[in-house]
Amino acid sequence: MTAPTPTRDDKFSFGLWTTGWQAQDQFGSATRPPLELTAHVRRLADLGAWGFTFHDNDVIPFDATPAERSRIIDQLKKVTEETGLVIEMVTTDTFAHPVFKDGAFTSNDRSVRRFGLRKVLANVDLAAELGASTFVMWGGREGSEYDGSKDLHAALERYREGLDTVAGYIKDKGYDLRIGLEPKPNEPRGNIFLPTVGHALAFIEQLEHGDIVGINPETGHEQMATLNYTHGLAQALWSDKLFHIDLNGQHGPMYDQDLVFGHGDLISAFFTVDLLENGFPSKPGAYEGARHFDFKPSRTEHEQGQYDSAAANMEMYLMLKERAIAFRQDSEVQEAMAYSGIEELSQPTLGEGETLADLLADRSTFEDFDADAAGERNYGFVRLQQLAMQHLLGFRA
Amino acid sequence: MTAPTPTRDDKFSFGLWTTGWQAQDQFGSATRPPLELTAHVRRLADLGAWGFTFHDNDVIPFDATPAERSRIIDQLKKVTEETGLVIEMVTTDTFAHPVFKDGAFTSNDRSVRRFGLRKVLANVDLAAELGASTFVMWGGREGSEYDGSKDLHAALERYREGLDTVAGYIKDKGYDLRIGLEPKPNEPRGNIFLPTVGHALAFIEQLEHGDIVGINPETGHEQMATLNYTHGLAQALWSDKLFHIDLNGQHGPMYDQDLVFGHGDLISAFFTVDLLENGFPSKPGAYEGARHFDFKPSRTEHEQGQYDSAAANMEMYLMLKERAIAFRQDSEVQEAMAYSGIEELSQPTLGEGETLADLLADRSTFEDFDADAAGERNYGFVRLQQLAMQHLLGFRA
Amino acid sequence: MTAPTPTRDDKFSFGLWTTGWQAQDQFGSATRPPLELTAHVRRLADLGAWGFTFHDNDVIPFDATPAERSRIIDQLKKVTEETGLVIEMVTTDTFAHPVFKDGAFTSNDRSVRRFGLRKVLANVDLAAELGASTFVMWGGREGSEYDGSKDLHAALERYREGLDTVAGYIKDKGYDLRIGLEPKPNEPRGNIFLPTVGHALAFIEQLEHGDIVGINPETGHEQMATLNYTHGLAQALWSDKLFHIDLNGQHGPMYDQDLVFGHGDLISAFFTVDLLENGFPSKPGAYEGARHFDFKPSRTEHEQGQYDSAAANMEMYLMLKERAIAFRQDSEVQEAMAYSGIEELSQPTLGEGETLADLLADRSTFEDFDADAAGERNYGFVRLQQLAMQHLLGFRA
Amino acid sequence: MTAPTPTRDDKFSFGLWTTGWQAQDQFGSATRPPLELTAHVRRLADLGAWGFTFHDNDVIPFDATPAERSRIIDQLKKVTEETGLVIEMVTTDTFAHPVFKDGAFTSNDRSVRRFGLRKVLANVDLAAELGASTFVMWGGREGSEYDGSKDLHAALERYREGLDTVAGYIKDKGYDLRIGLEPKPNEPRGNIFLPTVGHALAFIEQLEHGDIVGINPETGHEQMATLNYTHGLAQALWSDKLFHIDLNGQHGPMYDQDLVFGHGDLISAFFTVDLLENGFPSKPGAYEGARHFDFKPSRTEHEQGQYDSAAANMEMYLMLKERAIAFRQDSEVQEAMAYSGIEELSQPTLGEGETLADLLADRSTFEDFDADAAGERNYGFVRLQQLAMQHLLGFRA
Repeated sequence: MTAPTPTRDDKFSFGLWTTGWQAQDQFGSATRPPLELTAHVRRLADLGAWGFTFHDNDVIPFDATPAERSRIIDQLKKVTEETGLVIEMVTTDTFAHPVFKDGAFTSNDRSVRRFGLRKVLANVDLAAELGASTFVMWGGREGSEYDGSKDLHAALERYREGLDTVAGYIKDKGYDLRIGLEPKPNEPRGNIFLPTVGHALAFIEQLEHGDIVGINPETGHEQMATLNYTHGLAQALWSDKLFHIDLNGQHGPMYDQDLVFGHGDLISAFFTVDLLENGFPSKPGAYEGARHFDFKPSRTEHEQGQYDSAAANMEMYLMLKERAIAFRQDSEVQEAMAYSGIEELSQPTLGEGETLADLLADRSTFEDFDADAAGERNYGFVRLQQLAMQHLLGFRA
Repeated sequence: MTAPTPTRDDKFSFGLWTTGWQAQDQFGSATRPPLELTAHVRRLADLGAWGFTFHDNDVIPFDATPAERSRIIDQLKKVTEETGLVIEMVTTDTFAHPVFKDGAFTSNDRSVRRFGLRKVLANVDLAAELGASTFVMWGGREGSEYDGSKDLHAALERYREGLDTVAGYIKDKGYDLRIGLEPKPNEPRGNIFLPTVGHALAFIEQLEHGDIVGINPETGHEQMATLNYTHGLAQALWSDKLFHIDLNGQHGPMYDQDLVFGHGDLISAFFTVDLLENGFPSKPGAYEGARHFDFKPSRTEHEQGQYDSAAANMEMYLMLKERAIAFRQDSEVQEAMAYSGIEELSQPTLGEGETLADLLADRSTFEDFDADAAGERNYGFVRLQQLAMQHLLGFRA
Repeated sequence: MTAPTPTRDDKFSFGLWTTGWQAQDQFGSATRPPLELTAHVRRLADLGAWGFTFHDNDVIPFDATPAERSRIIDQLKKVTEETGLVIEMVTTDTFAHPVFKDGAFTSNDRSVRRFGLRKVLANVDLAAELGASTFVMWGGREGSEYDGSKDLHAALERYREGLDTVAGYIKDKGYDLRIGLEPKPNEPRGNIFLPTVGHALAFIEQLEHGDIVGINPETGHEQMATLNYTHGLAQALWSDKLFHIDLNGQHGPMYDQDLVFGHGDLISAFFTVDLLENGFPSKPGAYEGARHFDFKPSRTEHEQGQYDSAAANMEMYLMLKERAIAFRQDSEVQEAMAYSGIEELSQPTLGEGETLADLLADRSTFEDFDADAAGERNYGFVRLQQLAMQHLLGFRA
Repeated sequence: MTAPTPTRDDKFSFGLWTTGWQAQDQFGSATRPPLELTAHVRRLADLGAWGFTFHDNDVIPFDATPAERSRIIDQLKKVTEETGLVIEMVTTDTFAHPVFKDGAFTSNDRSVRRFGLRKVLANVDLAAELGASTFVMWGGREGSEYDGSKDLHAALERYREGLDTVAGYIKDKGYDLRIGLEPKPNEPRGNIFLPTVGHALAFIEQLEHGDIVGINPETGHEQMATLNYTHGLAQALWSDKLFHIDLNGQHGPMYDQDLVFGHGDLISAFFTVDLLENGFPSKPGAYEGARHFDFKPSRTEHEQGQYDSAAANMEMYLMLKERAIAFRQDSEVQEAMAYSGIEELSQPTLGEGETLADLLADRSTFEDFDADAAGERNYGFVRLQQLAMQHLLGFRA
């Protein structure tokens, strides 16, 4: 048995800032030279990727002239034509430059907010021009270190204003583009606004143009807040708001590690792939979007290691996919799932046509219900989990 | 200068399960006898509380006969009359009995879900009868240890069905009662559904009867997920969904500590009280609801310590209130806030009447904007925080 | 390929409090009846266990009469004879009874400290009588919630006094018994003394009788403090202090989950087994002690699930062992290890016979060293990790 | 009442990399120009500092010529003479340059280890020349992201070899210099060796020249691992190994925040200052070393904010000191401490001259001990903590 290799049908895509990360971190300088754009994209294509994504300033310098910008955009178009890779998503850097040190849409400085909005709008045009279907917005500097440094009501008002302005612009222009908000709890700010999948979903409900705004959850970001990524994906899917994903690896609450997908919490990664590929038991069907990786090759790696790391993401995903599909198809697993009541949960609690009055009148549900006996049920969750482990580790292959 | 003492105008309320906790924990047996109901309530009244709250099974045994139930309810009514204390909130225990070991509304076992619903509905009646205005629902067993043990889509469907059934019942009955969902990330389940303020707010938006459903955020629960409690309150207030609060103390991600309010992250507690008492700079005004404490006297404390702990919550709140009010009224603070641009954030990013086209045409916002110069602004957030610290520590009193 | 099954040669052992946990937790009552002692031990034997362990009060009630105690000890001896199971470790419960609510060896109450010491000494005798080789001490209540509630110097002095008294007693009696201290960062106390492997190792160095005191690290306890369990084991082994182990599963900093080994951080579990079975690359050789599990069957499980959970620990260990052995024997892995410099690290930094003066005089090490060139090395750590993942997931089997 | 201002007697010292941090972080570029060395030191002197510290490469570029190095050292000497500031500690940067990406003393690359050793030795000479008494070593890159990428035994062997080489050199040279190891759990590596105070203390015990090696614990580093910093300091003091301290602020497990001291966990900071100023109840006496701050002015701050931040550290320390001294001197506090048994803990558990045999023969300690009655003691820890809070918040001033 050998590890599977990716094809374009797998819809793998990479941020150019991932493989291309030069490994400058909080405590050290870059260990790698920049990757040349065309060579970089070609190499991703060779490895089996289907698409790529970027922040404006990953490819176009912050202070590029219009001519430089044009030249680079042409280069991007050319390399996508040559390789067949798709630019499925574009995003805007509103966090690296000092001007954004207190945020872009929620900076206390109104001139910065106006500049931030303009920078984003310029990239909406670029995303549309390049055929992207998703426009991710990570507000990494929208937040604070000190609760007193923000009027939190005003901050949420400004965030809403900014989002609605961008979404309204997309609609006005008729672009076939949806926004994906990316939550993160902290780093680089002490507390970032919209810290989790939940907060972002709730925020979207307050928007005027929320219909074209969804979320782009990142594995490690939820795990930095001790949360279950797969549960977060599930709530986003249930709300029809999973517009994009950022897969990677993380070891719980610490700095943002951006490890290779699966190199963090492996069991969680298995169930993430299970959800993306198999869907829910009561609502089967694969997630249709790009399988997008937002990771960083470790700082110890040089060029060979950068691409080995990119390949590892895809290989890991495919290994987990193979295991997850076999898991759900195994008849012993299906029997164990039935034993555990997995399907029973999809039955409505009230019967078809049953009214509340009927329920209240049904003595078997309460007055005559033997709670002690029901409390003795063996749910068999550990056995089911162990079957998953046998599959995951290839002991039922 | 001495610490302030509470009066009923402060609207402090306590869960009977808090002071009354017998201190049986995961690793040890009870260290304290139960508190007798009437004496317990009288003592809270003497300490300066305004109200109290309870889970049904805090006062009525799980398997009480209707007669026992009646007798206890009469006792509750009598002691509230005698003391003048308000029963401002009632909640239902759907977590302690073995029958709920896989949840109540989202148990894989349908008969358990039906029983859970009936138990909750019975307590809605009780809450209404006792004049409570809030009905809190903490789904502490709604969740899982293993991702495979739940159909996550079905779980959210069932949770929605359960909530809408309860909320619909409240409306049908014409009760003046609102539901407060209480999020928690984990413990006693490995992962609890609706793990944070954000997830609960987002979930409510999917309900049919979400208009009478809001949230009851607990300090420690958000902090267990590394999140900023005050930020969570702010998003809830901004969404008009802060229906109730549970104040206590916690030291970040670990077991649920339920310390006295302020005995965990003190600076965070200061800004929580600042928000509840002063409101937002751009939207002043105190939170109107009960200041409700959901804490546990440490297991080392015996009866005297139980009541000392209750008193400590109120005293801490009042000390912080005094400091927070002085902080916002200090002219040097106001000057520092202006310097930091706190008020500037409440100005809309687009001017009054300014269209998107106007913004795009305004070269001063982008083409001619000097981002480098704007990036050199000293926001002065540390100075502002230090002024808060001087107030908090009583060095400007 | 099917999952391996355990034999006694695998040296698996279980705490009776693990399988036997009745699932009473912080928020709920017991969901399971107690397991009858003899049946329980027989069943563990049938599942393939080699040994078992217990706290005194797991089998002998806190307030048992001497006669009851004798009777139970006889029953223990009988069932070990019958089944051939080994009682490899005995430990003392100094945490459950209210008397220990502020600790046993470090309680502020001297009479409690004296009682705690006596209780421990009584169990040292029992451990020796039953042929145990390890005496574990988990000081779960030695700690505090409030820094002011302890004189921290005195607490360490008393802890030392207690440990040296017990260790001195063991020596006096000539027992063939070693003490294993079990670190834990928190829960049930807000902060426990000796919170990590490191703190316990350091503490032992201050003992008079530290030669017979080592540590018993538990997977989840280190992970609750965000630490790497395998690294902790390595430092303990390097210090010749790994006297016993407690294997289980945990999802980072939250309540103590005591999941099945491997059901938490799976990759970490793989490298733990790799270390225990393969040893260090530069110092091969398996860990010789019991493979002891300290876990809890989830509260959703009834009797069948309790034993399924026990079995899952052993199966998981054996699956990981099979993968870990194949990993280290794979020639491609060995080549990748060489590429990454794994063996190079075992070469002393100074050459054989090289003096400090020689090093200082060697210009190639500093004055003429091309640091920039050396900084370009590709360590290939991600490729090596991905090879481990291929093995772990059974894609090289 | 106004906040106190620092004098040289307070022995405050700052790393030049703290105030001088240019605010380049993981996600953004520098927001501030470098501070000119002489002006920087003068300003710290004006603010009331007593000393300063630095990494070699904070002042001397990595690739400086000997002449440049000399010139800068002269400048350092001159400004210390002029201002009277003390260079109390010097440290070496073995983490920023790419050559150290896999560590310095534990790099898999032997040539890097040799270079790292030489770089450190060169700075030992510098530290001695400048009159420093402490030589801090933070091995920020000594660690791994993947357990397989290190031979953990060899890593500890090399770490020991490196440390003993440096310590041996100090002795050979007769320098009046002690080494302070600085533990950290993670960041920039996924796991750093010697992750906590405990691990470092244990490691030192294995050194040949451990007598001149102690630790330099940093507030935030311990808190990143969920640990209690004050407890860590206490164990270090108890082991006579607290050679230096790094004070700052942090909000639990997340990225390394390096906030102003006290701007993280304020209650913990209060008890840290209490310990440093008052000592232990049973062993009074102030810590004698520098009060050294290792913090970062927030990235939102420009030059004024950089110095305001430095000043905030000192002011915070002095405010806490004033509160901590009053706390311990308050007779009501002393009464509450007695009630809680704080002093009782300093009484040996065995009486003077009492043998183990005596203890075993004393039936009052065990056979006749009323554990249930002893379990009913009210320790009064919450009341004592609340008294501390009244002091901390200035309500007893």
